[in-house]
Amino acid sequence: MESGTMVTMSTPAVDSNSDYDSSSGSGFSLILLSKSNPVFGCYMFWTSLLILKMLIMSLLTARQRMKTKTFANPEDVRGGLEVRFGDPNVERVRRAHRNDLENVLPFILMSLAYVATGPNPLTARLLIRIGASARLLHTVVYAVIPVPQPARGLAFLTTFAITCFEAGYVFVCCVKYI
Amino acid sequence: MESGTMVTMSTPAVDSNSDYDSSSGSGFSLILLSKSNPVFGCYMFWTSLLILKMLIMSLLTARQRMKTKTFANPEDVRGGLEVRFGDPNVERVRRAHRNDLENVLPFILMSLAYVATGPNPLTARLLIRIGASARLLHTVVYAVIPVPQPARGLAFLTTFAITCFEAGYVFVCCVKYI
Amino acid sequence: MESGTMVTMSTPAVDSNSDYDSSSGSGFSLILLSKSNPVFGCYMFWTSLLILKMLIMSLLTARQRMKTKTFANPEDVRGGLEVRFGDPNVERVRRAHRNDLENVLPFILMSLAYVATGPNPLTARLLIRIGASARLLHTVVYAVIPVPQPARGLAFLTTFAITCFEAGYVFVCCVKYI
Repeated sequence: MESGTMVTMSTPAVDSNSDYDSSSGSGFSLILLSKSNPVFGCYMFWTSLLILKMLIMSLLTARQRMKTKTFANPEDVRGGLEVRFGDPNVERVRRAHRNDLENVLPFILMSLAYVATGPNPLTARLLIRIGASARLLHTVVYAVIPVPQPARGLAFLTTFAITCFEAGYVFVCCVKYI
Repeated sequence: MESGTMVTMSTPAVDSNSDYDSSSGSGFSLILLSKSNPVFGCYMFWTSLLILKMLIMSLLTARQRMKTKTFANPEDVRGGLEVRFGDPNVERVRRAHRNDLENVLPFILMSLAYVATGPNPLTARLLIRIGASARLLHTVVYAVIPVPQPARGLAFLTTFAITCFEAGYVFVCCVKYI
Repeated sequence: MESGTMVTMSTPAVDSNSDYDSSSGSGFSLILLSKSNPVFGCYMFWTSLLILKMLIMSLLTARQRMKTKTFANPEDVRGGLEVRFGDPNVERVRRAHRNDLENVLPFILMSLAYVATGPNPLTARLLIRIGASARLLHTVVYAVIPVPQPARGLAFLTTFAITCFEAGYVFVCCVKYI
């Protein structure tokens, strides 16, 4: 290997705005998980939004607990109230939050592995944008303003299908390392 | 530092099939989280399988909800049915799904950190393969075909022990950065 | 681009103990997610502790189930006992475990993206140390020795605020890749 090869390999790290063809050699994979890769930047942006949204679910739960005076722990109860469970408004937010754990965390982890395989940048960014936006919408129609089906189902299925596609893509890419 | 050193450092990224000794210098760590590292490729393959399995749990839950007509949200109910909770078949799948959240996601995150420390490639790939396979088995004996103990307990403990080992390994490796 | 530039770019990977200024060029981002970056080492150390703690929650749950003979699956029950749900001691540990899923996993994922943006090393390590320690404390006052509020609330809010800050930081850093 010569110094000239090295120079060629490193170019994308320096010229960070170009949509380089990531399939042209393993040398390019050096920089896939760094902020010089625009696809990883896109991934990080939408991850930060999704995590913020998940944290807000805790605040929504707390608001419903305050409003309906439904506290699950004896040490949280004040002023003669008793521990309560099963309030429908609290349970709705908690179901939405659990649905996030079941779908948003796998989406974030799978997208990370997907970005690390060096997919087509345009496709990858489109999938990440749509998948994350659908989850934001899912929370709105589930926990903020309950809307009749199929609004929630469609939002759920969009991210579900994208996560499946990413998992299949990584599966095929990495099956040789089984 | 001379150009000659640089060339040596970059060799593993180009010669992606060799099981290089990752402990020989910090320069090698450059490429641990890239698809040119066979251990990371192995990690990505099994991560994609585990995430696919977790997504299928949602479908299994939906199937049980349809079969037993147990829907948790008013907007999901049709044809004069009422909201219901606590059906044993639905709850079994939901417990299996929650067990996945509690064990598969930590296993995936811990394995990523473990791979990033540059462990022995043979050991690392063996641990990832066994840990992921045990979780696939766990789902089968918990949610698909309920089997008497200790089948589920053994599958659970296998991944549990591997995650603990990986955490201990990373702990010792990185204790200097505390 | 000349070979000389390449040599400069790679220096931090070799000289792994220096707190280099990570904002000085995109070339530095090459090594942010590697163990030659002390901030990533610190992240990995605390991640291993948090994952170990989450795994211990499973053991705490099992201990409470044994003690109160509250088993959720028919195949776990022996000696003429029946399946039981809703024991307050078991449910307390389970709520603490679920709270971990809702907060520790987002903290770990968000910190990873935060480290990947190349923040100020001192700030980043401080945030990771405080955020992780607060969660360790949260488990103690929730599930091990229940303590009156606001002990649990303060521990919860500390990690919550740090995760929010990290998400905001990544959001601003990566908004150009939207």
